[in-house]
Order: sequence, then C-alpha cells, then structure tokens
Amino acid sequence: MTKPLSKDLSHHLSLEAQSRGASSLKTAFKYFGLPGMVFLGGGLPLSDSFPFDSVSVASPAVPFAAGVCAKPSGSEEDTINFKISKRGEENKFKTEIPLSRSLQYGYTEGQPELVEFLKEHTALIHHPPYEDWSVISTVGNTQAWDAVLRNFTTRGDSILVEEYTFPSALEASHAQGIHNVPMKMDDYGIVPEALEQQLAQWVGAKPKFIYTIPTGQNPTGSSLPVDRRKAIYEICCKHDILIIEDEPYYFLQMEEYTQDVTKRVATTKSRDEFVGALVTSFLSLDIEGRVLRLDSFSKVLAPGTRMGWIVAQNRFIERFLRIHEVTIQCPSGFTQSIVSGTLNRWGQDGYLDWLIELRKDYTSKRDVAIDSVHKYFPKAVISFVPPVAGMFFTVDFDASKHPKFATEFGSDPLKVENAIYEAGLKNNCLMIPGSWFKVDDNSEPPQPAQEVSEAAKNTIFFRGTYAAVPMDQLALGLKSFGEAATAEFGL
Amino acid sequence: MTKPLSKDLSHHLSLEAQSRGASSLKTAFKYFGLPGMVFLGGGLPLSDSFPFDSVSVASPAVPFAAGVCAKPSGSEEDTINFKISKRGEENKFKTEIPLSRSLQYGYTEGQPELVEFLKEHTALIHHPPYEDWSVISTVGNTQAWDAVLRNFTTRGDSILVEEYTFPSALEASHAQGIHNVPMKMDDYGIVPEALEQQLAQWVGAKPKFIYTIPTGQNPTGSSLPVDRRKAIYEICCKHDILIIEDEPYYFLQMEEYTQDVTKRVATTKSRDEFVGALVTSFLSLDIEGRVLRLDSFSKVLAPGTRMGWIVAQNRFIERFLRIHEVTIQCPSGFTQSIVSGTLNRWGQDGYLDWLIELRKDYTSKRDVAIDSVHKYFPKAVISFVPPVAGMFFTVDFDASKHPKFATEFGSDPLKVENAIYEAGLKNNCLMIPGSWFKVDDNSEPPQPAQEVSEAAKNTIFFRGTYAAVPMDQLALGLKSFGEAATAEFGL
Repeated sequence: MTKPLSKDLSHHLSLEAQSRGASSLKTAFKYFGLPGMVFLGGGLPLSDSFPFDSVSVASPAVPFAAGVCAKPSGSEEDTINFKISKRGEENKFKTEIPLSRSLQYGYTEGQPELVEFLKEHTALIHHPPYEDWSVISTVGNTQAWDAVLRNFTTRGDSILVEEYTFPSALEASHAQGIHNVPMKMDDYGIVPEALEQQLAQWVGAKPKFIYTIPTGQNPTGSSLPVDRRKAIYEICCKHDILIIEDEPYYFLQMEEYTQDVTKRVATTKSRDEFVGALVTSFLSLDIEGRVLRLDSFSKVLAPGTRMGWIVAQNRFIERFLRIHEVTIQCPSGFTQSIVSGTLNRWGQDGYLDWLIELRKDYTSKRDVAIDSVHKYFPKAVISFVPPVAGMFFTVDFDASKHPKFATEFGSDPLKVENAIYEAGLKNNCLMIPGSWFKVDDNSEPPQPAQEVSEAAKNTIFFRGTYAAVPMDQLALGLKSFGEAATAEFGL
Repeated sequence: MTKPLSKDLSHHLSLEAQSRGASSLKTAFKYFGLPGMVFLGGGLPLSDSFPFDSVSVASPAVPFAAGVCAKPSGSEEDTINFKISKRGEENKFKTEIPLSRSLQYGYTEGQPELVEFLKEHTALIHHPPYEDWSVISTVGNTQAWDAVLRNFTTRGDSILVEEYTFPSALEASHAQGIHNVPMKMDDYGIVPEALEQQLAQWVGAKPKFIYTIPTGQNPTGSSLPVDRRKAIYEICCKHDILIIEDEPYYFLQMEEYTQDVTKRVATTKSRDEFVGALVTSFLSLDIEGRVLRLDSFSKVLAPGTRMGWIVAQNRFIERFLRIHEVTIQCPSGFTQSIVSGTLNRWGQDGYLDWLIELRKDYTSKRDVAIDSVHKYFPKAVISFVPPVAGMFFTVDFDASKHPKFATEFGSDPLKVENAIYEAGLKNNCLMIPGSWFKVDDNSEPPQPAQEVSEAAKNTIFFRGTYAAVPMDQLALGLKSFGEAATAEFGL
C-alpha cells in the first residue's frame, strides 16, 4: 500500500528561508566527473595531500555481552578493529567511507552510507506514515534547533515551549527576537486540554510551532504518554502549527520503576520486544509532514561525535540542505567515517543490541537514584514520578510546609527553593533548582494568563541526573541532599 | 614591551549578539569537580559508554621528504603512527587529547591542546600588535562567516564586499537581509582610493564591515599588496568599520611566476625565509582590534576536518563563544584528537615544513596552468596576472574583439562570455564565467554609482583552478579551452 504524500506547509518558512537561493555554481557541477571533461570549476584540494593516511578504530563488538560500560579486552571476542584508508581501494568493507571522500568537500546531507543507515533506522523505529520524508545530518541537536529557528521563525514571531525547558534552547530563540510562550505541563508533560484552550484564546498571529522534548524531558524527566501525543498532534493539525520534537533521550527509555527489587526485570528484551516497547513518537503519528524530528548520537554514542540528524518532509529537508551549505556544510569526515564504519559493521540489529544494553544501564542507574530518594528525602513534603526515560529525575517539594514559609520567607516559594539548594551545596551535593528552567513568558501581544492552582504555586522542584556519576557516588550524593532537605524542613 | 589593548568596538555588535545572554546554568558549573562535591547538575553521559575505545592514526612524518602528495610506506621513516585511547592514562604523548575528553561535552572554544597550538601559530606568523586577542575554533570558514554575520549585522544593515566574490558568502548575507555593496577591484584586488571615495560619498548608515579574501582571492586569484592593505586598514579606522579577513588560502602562497623555466626556484626555503616571505596580513597591522581573521584547515590539511578558527579581540571572541554554545558547540572530538595529535607531534616547525612543501606543490601546479595559458590562449585578446597565492587563476578577454560583438551579440560582453563558456564545454573543459561571481549591488538606500571605464565594461574573465586535477589533465584541459576560445575569436 502506498502511503500518502505530505502536505505542502511551505507557508511556515521564515523570511530568511524563503529568500535563500541555491548556489549559482551548482549549475556547473552537473559537468563534474563527466567522462573526458576536465573540470576546472571547483576549488577542491587533491585528496593526495590530506595528511591522514589511515585511521584505525577499536569499537565494542556485538552483542556487547558485558554491557555498554565494559572495558574491552581488545580481542576479537569483544572488539571490532577496522582501518579506514585514505585511498579507497584499500578498504575491505563494502560500506567503508574512504578518507579521500569523507575529508573532501561534498555531501552536505551526510555521506550516503551513513544517511542510508539512518533512513533504515528511522523506518524501522518510527514507520513514518507518509511517503516523502527524508533525513539530513546535523552537527547535533543544538545546531539543528538553531537551523529550525532560522528556517521557520522571523524576528517577532511566537513559538510555544514547555513551561520548563532546556535553557540553551530558549537563549537561542530569545536572541533571535522570538517570543517564547510557555505551555502548561504536569507530571506527564504538556497538558493537551490547556494547549487547546491556549490556542483557542490566542491573541495575534498564531505561534509558528510547538517545541517539545517529549521523552525524558529536560528538566522535568517526564515523558508524554501516547494518548497525549495523539491529542497534541490533532490540536496542531487543527491550528496549522508545526511540531518540533527534540529527541536526544529517546533511546534512554527504561523499565517502569518498582520499589520491589524482586520484581525488577533482569532479563534482556528481544529486539522486537524492545522496539515494541518504545513510546510512539510524534513522527510515527505524522500523516501530514508536520513534525520535524531532531535526533542525535550525543546521548547514545558520544556528544563529541557532533553529529545528529533531522527527519522531516522533503520540502523542509531541502531548506535545511540550503542553510547547511552556507553554515556548517556537514559533520566532520572523521566522525562520518568512524561512526559509519562502526554502525554498518554492527548493522541495524547490532545497533538495537547496543541500545538494549544502554537501556539496561540507565534502568539500573535510575533505580539507584529513585531508591535513594525514597530512602533519604523527607516523605512528608515531597512528591515525584519516577522517570521512564532520559537522564533526569525531579523531586517536588511543598514549599508551604517549610517552617519559615509564612514568616521569614514571606510565603515566597523561591526562597524555600534557594534555602534547600544552599543546604544541599553545604552538604556537598548539587541539584539544580527547577525555577532555573522556568520559561519567562515574553509573549507579544500578551496572551491571556492561564490558571494556576494554589498547590502548584507553592510547588518547587529540583532536577538531578543519574547519568553523569558512578552509582556509589550517586547514592552518596542523594543521601547528603535528602538529609539536608530534611533538616531544612525541621523533620 | 607590552602591547596596547584593543579598542572597545562593542557598538558594532548586532541586535542578536547584544541580546544573547550567558547560560543560567553556568553559575552552577563552578561547583563541578570540587573535591567531595557530588555534582548532579549536568546531563553528561559517562565516557565509559562511548563505543570508541581507541583511534589509531597514520600521518606523514616531518620533513615530508617526498612532498605533500607522496604515498607513505608506513615505516617510521616517513610515517608517524599514534594511538589515541579513550582512557587517558593509556596515552603516552603529553599533549594527547583522550577520547573520554574530546568526545564529551565541554570546551566550546576548542580543546586546550589545540587552541594553544593555534595561538602559538598565530603569534609566530602574524604577531598581532595588540595584547588582548585570542582564538576560538569553528567548523570552517563558511560557518565562521555565518557567525560573523549574526554577531555584527542586523537585517537591513549594509556590508562591503569585493566586486567579485565567493557566491556562498553572498547567499548567506543576502538571506539574512543584509545589503551587499561591491567595492571596486582591479588586478590586485580592492582599490583603496575607490574605497575611500565610496565611503566619503556614502549615503545612509555606514556599512558594518568590509569582507575580503585578501590572499588568493576567490574568484579573481588576486592578492592584495601590502601597501594596499595598509591603506585599507587606515580607511577602515578612519570610518570606524571592521575588517573581516577570510583567509583559507593564506598558506597557498607561491613563488612569483616566471616564464623562464631556468629561473624557477627549485630550492626549498628555510622556515625563516618562508615565514618572512608571507604577505602581511590585516591581523598583523591591527593595532585597534578591528580585524576578525577567519582561518581554516580546509585547504592546508583537509576540508572534511570541518575545523577552522577565528582570531579577534577578546570581547568579540566571547561573543563567538556565546553563539557557538547555542549552535555548533565545537568541532568534532575525533577531528580535535586526530588533528591535535598530528600537529603537536609535528610541532610548530614541522607544521611550517608541511606548509613549505605545500607551497612547492602549488607553485608547480600554478606554473603548469600559466604555462598552458601562455601556450594555448589567444594572446591578442587576453590579459592576465599570474596568481601568487590560492587555488585560482583568471584570464581576462576583451569581449569587443569578438567578431560578432557589435553585430549578433549587440555589444553585450556577457554574450561573448557565454559563447566562450559553451565553446570550452564542447571542447571538454569547464572554466567558470566571471560574471557568475559578480556582486549584485543591492544597497539600500542606493549608493552613488562608481565610474567604470569603457575598457573595463568590455572585459570578461574566466576562473580556473589548478588545485583539483592532476597536472597532465590540467595542461590538457587548458589546451582544449584555449583552442576553443581561439576559434571563437576567429584567430
């Protein structure tokens, strides 16, 4: 059965994206490589003079029996060793990208072997329900977000962002003169009914898109349940708004948390079970081509690859190609040769095995964190939902229960937040105050205020991560923070 | 003797650059790594799980006895072999950047070992005459140019660009709503007197900066003589205009061309002679901190490193740091570890040796190209200045001497240009018509027209490169093109 084509949503393109032409020199490049043609048109250095004759890589071998953090022996048992030569003819593996190509100009969209792998991967995981989608490589989601802003917003436009979100994302849009307008969230992320109401009451030009980190949200650690994703998608179709789904943590999905250690799942999932258990992405609901998905290797391979990719309808991918031609061009050739060499040796199945092991690793870390919160944090004043994805967990505190709340702190929950932050620091553990992630509503014209309950007003939270420190330190740190908070509340 | 400090030129920053804040989370990061502190503040993956255990590199060894294009034997004679491990303790070389660091988040400005090398290199070559300058890494000059536009221009601003220039640079500024205004050039680049006149007669807000490729200019192949550089620098100081010097070809400086093969210099220059013979950069004239120099590894190592750097006064470097934090972050960690591993083993002297060999290589290629133009192009209708730097040479034609000029072509030089282009193509050689690089003056408000002589009006040119094809093909191609052009002119 053929899938439908995307809708033409080009009217959402920014002034910058609309006025960007293709390179005039491109018309000459159709003659490049024609038999007999001496092409003196391009300023490409000869690859003979690239001073990198070969790069040899040692990567862990499928099935990663000792987990993602194992120190490999270097033997063929647990390590793949491969050499990427400058001169392609020496490369033995069929999908090797020789350095003569990856270190040369060209392939703004990414090297074909890598783009092909990413397309297959995307089809396998998300089954986009329309026909004309594609991918383009980026140098990570931070850059992808910047390119999205430039392609879809013009100074003075509004966008919708989660009430608490990644500060760098806001700084990027703010500096570009974009009005960030917060969407109401609860423990499970964006509240669809509130979003619908907000858009129904919207004053002035509609927002250009919603920006969401739907899975393992930063900072809240929440993940949008599938029914909310469906509702939000419907709302965006109705109001003709694009959806930017920023998904660096997508594959850091974990087992549900249970306090009962005997019920913790120790068995490895099969690949089918693993894929089947992944939360439905906005991309996989997208029948119109309204979703731009930002994916990255930063959290599943390494941040320093500086490589990610955007999935979107072809009309939009073409606009990213044009902006990349005059900005980043493409990810590093070393990155592309090394990552492609690794992934194409692993294969799609091997990559899933890697992600399955990563899931196990993050599940254990999350469990240590949440166990510690249960054990050391003051139960009477906190509440939290254990995360099912991502690197972050949050703990809510009822600020009104602080003994000095109504007196010394003048009923200001931010003063309680700061007191807990400082107490934690003194006890040698740093967690980030939730208010640091709060979006300043700078809508212009001002939008109608949304209702906030008294309880919500007095709720403060702290964000911690279980990704960045070894598990013994994690437990130790949370004990310190929990005890400090307990003492603060006089409990 | 201490050098003077730069002038505060912050008033040149764009609306975007002025409104960009630092990350609010940064205040927490001062606690990162403190003894005893458990830092749960950042979403960094543990480097244990980066699936790259080591990368081993084979690079040519100093002194590159067989030239930059030699195929190394792999023996210690001509090859350095080094291994960069993920876990730093295994690295034996003191300036190795372990993958655990280069593949992690951090160091937006570039890894310290590499930044240090680039600073030393910059001091050695350019001796910037003021104290408070620094460097920041980029992902190449295309991105650096984009960052310059965003840091110093706001929609509606004007900039001055060379009359013929790199089309991608123009497309970037045009799409951002910037008015590109051409500066008059001759065979040696920007004409200072014309620039002074243009600025004296300027209508409306002064241009934000001049953008120039001073050495081996693209497309003209011209290089600005030092007296012009000095004059232009003075003019820019007088009118308070910044200078963007885009210098990808700086180290592709060659010996002067001579037709007399017996006079061609065969001896290798010493390092001191080499450095002494390099043309004076705008940076090395810059007593005020008015120059932003864009440097790149693309033409001297390989384009796919996707790495370059900006040299500028510290106030400006700080603004690039801020924009990079929310866009590219930094170059690929693989690139940084590999390039730093190579360059720090070569040392500053070894790097100069590499550049000296590159100079020899480009000199030979340029000689083949210019010899062929002398031999095969129609002398009666052409003129040219052999390039002393870069990848490009140009040949001017007097269009009025074409037999159909006044008749069939209606005295339109562009019709002659197209006829020669097509004739070349038919004869299997492509050179790019000069008009493709011509800047459309879109000044707003319109600036007074500059005088153009009758001869200049009828001069057309073609750009070729000697960088991209082996020398035998280069000679063959230019023979084809020259013969086609000769026939076109009925000679």
